[in-house]
Amino acid sequence: MSELADHTLRLTLDRIKELGAISEEKGRLTRTLLSSANKAAAGRLLEWMRELNMQVSHNAMGTVRGVLPGTQPRALPLLIGSHFDTAVGAGKYDGVLGILVGLAALERLAAEGIALPVPVHLLGFADQEGVRFHTSYLGSRWVCGDFDEATYALRDDTGITLSTYLALAGWTEDSSDIEYPPGGARGYLEVHIEQGRILEQAGQPAGVVTAICGQSRVVVSVLGKAEHAATTPMDLRHDALTGAAECLLAIEKTGRDHPPLLASVGKIQVEPGTSGSIPGVARFTLDLRHPEDAVRAEFLEKLRARCSAIVTQRGLKLEWRVVLDHDGVSCDVELGRRLTGALTAAIGSAPHLASGAGHDGVVMSRVAPVSMLFVRCRDGLSHHPDEFVKDQDVAAAIEVVFRFLKSFLVGG
Amino acid sequence: MSELADHTLRLTLDRIKELGAISEEKGRLTRTLLSSANKAAAGRLLEWMRELNMQVSHNAMGTVRGVLPGTQPRALPLLIGSHFDTAVGAGKYDGVLGILVGLAALERLAAEGIALPVPVHLLGFADQEGVRFHTSYLGSRWVCGDFDEATYALRDDTGITLSTYLALAGWTEDSSDIEYPPGGARGYLEVHIEQGRILEQAGQPAGVVTAICGQSRVVVSVLGKAEHAATTPMDLRHDALTGAAECLLAIEKTGRDHPPLLASVGKIQVEPGTSGSIPGVARFTLDLRHPEDAVRAEFLEKLRARCSAIVTQRGLKLEWRVVLDHDGVSCDVELGRRLTGALTAAIGSAPHLASGAGHDGVVMSRVAPVSMLFVRCRDGLSHHPDEFVKDQDVAAAIEVVFRFLKSFLVGG
Repeated sequence: MSELADHTLRLTLDRIKELGAISEEKGRLTRTLLSSANKAAAGRLLEWMRELNMQVSHNAMGTVRGVLPGTQPRALPLLIGSHFDTAVGAGKYDGVLGILVGLAALERLAAEGIALPVPVHLLGFADQEGVRFHTSYLGSRWVCGDFDEATYALRDDTGITLSTYLALAGWTEDSSDIEYPPGGARGYLEVHIEQGRILEQAGQPAGVVTAICGQSRVVVSVLGKAEHAATTPMDLRHDALTGAAECLLAIEKTGRDHPPLLASVGKIQVEPGTSGSIPGVARFTLDLRHPEDAVRAEFLEKLRARCSAIVTQRGLKLEWRVVLDHDGVSCDVELGRRLTGALTAAIGSAPHLASGAGHDGVVMSRVAPVSMLFVRCRDGLSHHPDEFVKDQDVAAAIEVVFRFLKSFLVGG
Repeated sequence: MSELADHTLRLTLDRIKELGAISEEKGRLTRTLLSSANKAAAGRLLEWMRELNMQVSHNAMGTVRGVLPGTQPRALPLLIGSHFDTAVGAGKYDGVLGILVGLAALERLAAEGIALPVPVHLLGFADQEGVRFHTSYLGSRWVCGDFDEATYALRDDTGITLSTYLALAGWTEDSSDIEYPPGGARGYLEVHIEQGRILEQAGQPAGVVTAICGQSRVVVSVLGKAEHAATTPMDLRHDALTGAAECLLAIEKTGRDHPPLLASVGKIQVEPGTSGSIPGVARFTLDLRHPEDAVRAEFLEKLRARCSAIVTQRGLKLEWRVVLDHDGVSCDVELGRRLTGALTAAIGSAPHLASGAGHDGVVMSRVAPVSMLFVRCRDGLSHHPDEFVKDQDVAAAIEVVFRFLKSFLVGG
């Protein structure tokens, strides 16, 4: 590794460590939208961008941007971005890695005196994990203009709306809008940890993402009758939880019988929720993913019908509320060709893979062609303190983005 | 109804209403151990006891007692008791009714100038529902001396122990101990709403309880592996929740196949508990009841083995922690004979029934023979704002206890 590359890597690893220590909770990393920790992280990102002589700005949500105008400041910009909020009890790479790898690649360019013929915008989104408002992508959705009354009316667990939060805790001082219309950017590149084990099993440090899977998320409520567990005979019960349990097993079986369908229930709550009561309500989330949108839609309807049949048979009722329904996004072929070239030059090969997880690129595809680079992540483990990326894989990612950017010098 | 009986009924209904308005929450009735609301209710009970010239006292937990010495103050006392704490969002009869019916019957005796040849102790237990510390009967367990280090070390949801609560919020001023050794009382009578529909279906206002069912409560943890829902193929998952779902259905089927066994899961929690994750831990409560203790013990073991087999088959692990294991209590024959006589005299018949729900009588059976009177309750609905007992059924209960007490005048 060159001395310069080594210096940039050290700087990047230090920054990952520093941001990993900025948390709203003691003893673990949690950084959610509009928390002081999130603003502190945004502040550090802006400082590092400023040190690179970028024109920096932030919006009221705390999303940050650094701009390098390049030699043709009026040309359509190339966007590099990721998010810097985290899940609860998270690891220090998810999200942050993509912003800092972009920053490092731009530092490498600057150190070599290279100015690109396209403006480059480095974006750090203040919300992707969606912890506070139980919805994803608020950072990139704002930037793409995908914010409406319903978004502002989202409520957190305490019942406070997003618009109230923005009024009370928004970063309004010196803020300016960061927004792109459809077609407003030449492309969007996102670097992210894989959150799966494909690269690890292939023994590859990084790979080109071909597509981001579509995703549906449903809140399913099974409605029965809450009664005293000590006095209601088994055959007279309307137990919402056992009804939900039967739905859960049907959902799991459907997923197992139809790979690569992924059907998951990650959250369940019951009411009244005491050990001596029969649950009157059981509410769970269904997360459904498939590489083909039409197949996902078909199974979503099949599962609705199956759950409905199960609960009806038990004298219960079903509520089925689709809260998220994103079609899959194909990554851009031309950007993918550049990324493949850069990856091959950097590591000698260029594995391609699809992304099961959703990323900001899903939202950014509304305004620009999208490309993604995945970085190997130990055991595919994310959203966990043990999340880990090897230093040399971070170095490889920086090298790939550096070369990807340099590809715009010719035939731009 | 005599004018006196009518006056006593009005007074009792007013008191039920008054206590029903003393809550620690706005808009619904919740009164838990050591809350200001619980202390306020205790204070009202003590005042009413004082008005009847009872010798009153309370202990540090807030359990209250009124003593009428009768004509033989050194004789073994007869205890009448119930609890005045409530479930969350409760009704106004559960618990309180038993104390106030006892008080009303004693007022009837006093108004008629009758002094009994046995001392009567009226007890109001400060905790039976166990909301704060997730365990039942703390009030009666204290009174029976069934308190050890593990009891004091119980923690609430915030992690604060019972002993800390007693030190910080205990009612230590003027408190004195209220305790009975085994054999320390002639008998214990408890009046309680039925919480089932047997009396309602039989068209009877009240009934004599023959036995209180035994009960086991288990906290079951299914341990799998938390992973990202978007990236883990179905066949590689170790989903704790679907494992738990299979256990839930096995538990339900066992209950259904073996009446009168009651097998209920009222509470379930998962970790990490987000919609995009596969649950690594699913923890649920199992509540098991059967009129025969040996049968209950047998099914408890069968269910442990069945759940263990289910989770092992799925590559998961099981933790099985029995947190409560009360054998059934047979009500005393001699007291039951007196109660049957009183009931027959009052309403012309005397239905007998077993109690599925647990009551303070379970604990009090350690120190005295136990008798219980059940009062009809609409739809068997308790632990709910709609809990309802007809005024005339309250009147019947007072009449029965009045006659029960008078039976000690002869052949005592």
